[in-house]
Amino acid sequence: MTDRRRQFLRRFWHSVRLTPIRKRGQDVDHLLGVCAALLSQRGEVSTARIAAEAIAAYDHLNDEGRGAFFDALAKDYSASAADLQRAIDAYQINPTPLNAHALHQAAEPRRQELFRRLNTGAGGTQLLVRLRADLLQTLDDHPERASIDADLVHLLRWWFNRGFLVLQRIDWRTSATVLERLIAYEAVHQIQGWDDLRRRLEADRRCYAFFHPALRDEPLIFIEVALTSRLAGDVQSLLDIRTPVADPTHARWAMFYSITNCQPGLRGVSFGNFLIKQVVEDLSRDFRSLRKFATLSPIPGFRSGF
Amino acid sequence: MTDRRRQFLRRFWHSVRLTPIRKRGQDVDHLLGVCAALLSQRGEVSTARIAAEAIAAYDHLNDEGRGAFFDALAKDYSASAADLQRAIDAYQINPTPLNAHALHQAAEPRRQELFRRLNTGAGGTQLLVRLRADLLQTLDDHPERASIDADLVHLLRWWFNRGFLVLQRIDWRTSATVLERLIAYEAVHQIQGWDDLRRRLEADRRCYAFFHPALRDEPLIFIEVALTSRLAGDVQSLLDIRTPVADPTHARWAMFYSITNCQPGLRGVSFGNFLIKQVVEDLSRDFRSLRKFATLSPIPGFRSGF
Amino acid sequence: MTDRRRQFLRRFWHSVRLTPIRKRGQDVDHLLGVCAALLSQRGEVSTARIAAEAIAAYDHLNDEGRGAFFDALAKDYSASAADLQRAIDAYQINPTPLNAHALHQAAEPRRQELFRRLNTGAGGTQLLVRLRADLLQTLDDHPERASIDADLVHLLRWWFNRGFLVLQRIDWRTSATVLERLIAYEAVHQIQGWDDLRRRLEADRRCYAFFHPALRDEPLIFIEVALTSRLAGDVQSLLDIRTPVADPTHARWAMFYSITNCQPGLRGVSFGNFLIKQVVEDLSRDFRSLRKFATLSPIPGFRSGF
Amino acid sequence: MTDRRRQFLRRFWHSVRLTPIRKRGQDVDHLLGVCAALLSQRGEVSTARIAAEAIAAYDHLNDEGRGAFFDALAKDYSASAADLQRAIDAYQINPTPLNAHALHQAAEPRRQELFRRLNTGAGGTQLLVRLRADLLQTLDDHPERASIDADLVHLLRWWFNRGFLVLQRIDWRTSATVLERLIAYEAVHQIQGWDDLRRRLEADRRCYAFFHPALRDEPLIFIEVALTSRLAGDVQSLLDIRTPVADPTHARWAMFYSITNCQPGLRGVSFGNFLIKQVVEDLSRDFRSLRKFATLSPIPGFRSGF
Repeated sequence: MTDRRRQFLRRFWHSVRLTPIRKRGQDVDHLLGVCAALLSQRGEVSTARIAAEAIAAYDHLNDEGRGAFFDALAKDYSASAADLQRAIDAYQINPTPLNAHALHQAAEPRRQELFRRLNTGAGGTQLLVRLRADLLQTLDDHPERASIDADLVHLLRWWFNRGFLVLQRIDWRTSATVLERLIAYEAVHQIQGWDDLRRRLEADRRCYAFFHPALRDEPLIFIEVALTSRLAGDVQSLLDIRTPVADPTHARWAMFYSITNCQPGLRGVSFGNFLIKQVVEDLSRDFRSLRKFATLSPIPGFRSGF
Repeated sequence: MTDRRRQFLRRFWHSVRLTPIRKRGQDVDHLLGVCAALLSQRGEVSTARIAAEAIAAYDHLNDEGRGAFFDALAKDYSASAADLQRAIDAYQINPTPLNAHALHQAAEPRRQELFRRLNTGAGGTQLLVRLRADLLQTLDDHPERASIDADLVHLLRWWFNRGFLVLQRIDWRTSATVLERLIAYEAVHQIQGWDDLRRRLEADRRCYAFFHPALRDEPLIFIEVALTSRLAGDVQSLLDIRTPVADPTHARWAMFYSITNCQPGLRGVSFGNFLIKQVVEDLSRDFRSLRKFATLSPIPGFRSGF
Repeated sequence: MTDRRRQFLRRFWHSVRLTPIRKRGQDVDHLLGVCAALLSQRGEVSTARIAAEAIAAYDHLNDEGRGAFFDALAKDYSASAADLQRAIDAYQINPTPLNAHALHQAAEPRRQELFRRLNTGAGGTQLLVRLRADLLQTLDDHPERASIDADLVHLLRWWFNRGFLVLQRIDWRTSATVLERLIAYEAVHQIQGWDDLRRRLEADRRCYAFFHPALRDEPLIFIEVALTSRLAGDVQSLLDIRTPVADPTHARWAMFYSITNCQPGLRGVSFGNFLIKQVVEDLSRDFRSLRKFATLSPIPGFRSGF
Repeated sequence: MTDRRRQFLRRFWHSVRLTPIRKRGQDVDHLLGVCAALLSQRGEVSTARIAAEAIAAYDHLNDEGRGAFFDALAKDYSASAADLQRAIDAYQINPTPLNAHALHQAAEPRRQELFRRLNTGAGGTQLLVRLRADLLQTLDDHPERASIDADLVHLLRWWFNRGFLVLQRIDWRTSATVLERLIAYEAVHQIQGWDDLRRRLEADRRCYAFFHPALRDEPLIFIEVALTSRLAGDVQSLLDIRTPVADPTHARWAMFYSITNCQPGLRGVSFGNFLIKQVVEDLSRDFRSLRKFATLSPIPGFRSGF
């Protein structure tokens, strides 16, 4: 590290520590300062530390602060128009693969690098999922922020690629932290407390969820299945906690009666079909008598028995 | 799934099964057919299965086959020139953020989506790391393949972001599978069998590695440290297995005497500095007497005590 | 295995399978037959299988059946009077250590070997703990069964020796299976559902339990602690779910406000003091500000601050 | 705790700390003092701490010290002759079950309670296994110590009951700590280093071991199996590292070619047959083509195919 750089960092941390009582949306200017420092880092040594500072700073923002932050992201973190124009010109003269690649890079908004670097701090992935959830709530009133969303979807599609998702069966031995989230997230057929939840996990019922290694204890999506001897006519009888428990060993039907996306910040980063496919495979292996898989839930393209 | 699609897939799998005895580089045409099918998938349902088929097909290729595959990747999986030109034109007329975003996407080679989809199959991440290692060996003779490499680096930077790496101490309780790889990978100061290895893991020595959740048992990079009472003048005395073991409790120096990147396919996707930084933090916490950290190894920008 | 033995086993299993519809206390005679077979085993090969059969048979007993089984244990599984007399005579003639040892063995009721062999079947340890709980409920009316209890206490003291117990902190990440048992078992200060439970696990509260490797998910004993800035006058304020959460970092008092033995079958096999001692050590290490440990609960010999 | 007791303990720890430079077999008197303190404990609070002190003290003994310790165990830790005579007299007058039980207890050497209490300290189980191994080496010259051995076997039979043993497959993913012990322990067909070991763990070979929860990383016994298409005539061809690897999927024979007891201190506490039985079950489940199980190793009562 050069001396100048060292001095810069020392001043930077000094200023961070001196930050006075929070104001303006609980201090969006502080966050923007940290983000600028994060993007200006050339080595990696301090990246994770500054990213952690930014993550903490985002958590202090209120609605006003987040709005101002999104505006800055849209305005100041786009691709450089000058660089992009240069890359276009070069490609128009000489449309080689490498010039196309350079054009691709010049068109990449600086936000993407910022997001990549935010992810180096502890809790970074979680922050970006939350940040997108916050952003989505403002899009109706601020259509100009759609390009931020496009960038977030882009990166989340990379990071939540099927290859990184881990399927887990949820049962009564699962941590209360996870189970509580299932109760909170289930939107289609609300879970009425712990007894209702338990009824959905065991005996002739199954529940599976996808997790991501960077989001501990956070289900991304979960699906609830009933193993029955015949096609269930309506979901009410499946949900009724008084319906007698059946022996699943000879079940012929697996009824997917509910599927829930847990993370609003992952809207459009679809893994529902992957989940269903994997669960069909696992159930087929565990219950040889199963003959039919069907859904009672409005899952697009998945309605009928198959 | 529409009936036409279903028919297509049925024919596709039929042809896959009929594939005769392998030829032409152990059948690069088969791999290219599978890749085409993979990119043409609109739903997710069969993606992982086709990806697995492609991964297996790549493993059958010989040098000739890999060469032909790389050529196809360079030629047939670039961005569409027509689409890119249209996006350029739209941006030139109206340089809005969304048009810049569309341009960014149009400039993205189709390879990237192919790679993303390959990653949905079991072993996909490992394949892509290996594929890049194979590619790098051919770049000198085939500079026109540099754009493939640029795309691979791009995606590997996303996927091997610091936020997803897991630090683990390596000691004698570590799995033999991992330890054996350390012996194989260590290039700077060769490890002379299991006894030499053990000497580097315990007592006044430490070893740490980064792992990625999708690459089980595969160290990405590892670092070896000696805890000493004074600055070691040369690395030979540290490496000599006859050097007496010292009590690390009162060590003042942590000498990073070797750092090894294990995956040629991750060249340039640097995490060495992150590793050092994290290890410095962990050692400082575990050994309160440490005062100095230094390196004996030619790590760029890391030579002197700090 | 000799042919005769093989024939015996074949007939034995045959008879087991032919066992008609259950009767007499849900078939205590079947259980006694299996126990006889278990004790007559000379090799180990079939021991675990016969033990599993006995464990299943015990589970089918009703009150009448258990009573008959206990009577048989008391009557038919004592030490052999003849053997014991012989050992006494030998010792009286020649009181050597080995004759004392032989006397010790001759005085050992055959029950103990039966119990040891029952423990080789899956779920054996759990069965013996349950069996003792069942037995204890009958002791008032059947004082002649006290010697069975003495034998069970003897073996449980061996098996639940401190050296085999595992301390675990219980928090909200613990499995629901375990948490539900805490709610069910807590007798002193009843837990009012999951919210009340959670309040007792986190922030300025802690909960620890002992487990045994052979009893999965079964807490043996647990203790609840409040970390407070001053001596709490009464337990009600600690239990009140509306009492504000305090920062435990600067707590000076650790108030053990409840300790619960979970297994009636382990009555008198005490590990409460071990638990307290270990928790005091763990808390002292985690919270350097703690100065006083006290109990609000009637724990014999543990009432005052210490 | 009473004040007198507290004073006693304070003096006790004081004396412990003042213990001068070790002598007489590296201070067997210190160990005997600690053992006396351990047995005199009435509560549990200090038991584990004193047990830990005793465990450490035993580790300092040399041959002379261990001999003196064994002599003391034989002489001073037997059953009380007076108590035993009283119990005999009571039983002779009135041979009730409870009097038989009292006699059983009076005949129990005080060693057993000492051993139980030693087990409460960290590493206690390991110590007792080691202590018995040490003792066994002296029995030829000191037949009077046989009663100590009888007591140790008695307690080890309780503690290493099949119900507490855990079966694990050993493969190349196993910790090097465990693998190294296999190399060291295998006596019948010596393992020639890590390559030879690996050949015995994978592909058409399997290796399984029993572990006990209180002895981390310590295999108790392990068995080596070759999966072959036909009965192997001699063990040499199985052991030869140049013998080609076969596909085990269609193997018809499982040849148990070596079984090794790892702990001399557990001699006579047999679990070999349990291990074989469990492994036969596991292999039968994993390899449906297996038809015959045989042994090439001199395992008593297990020689022929079955």
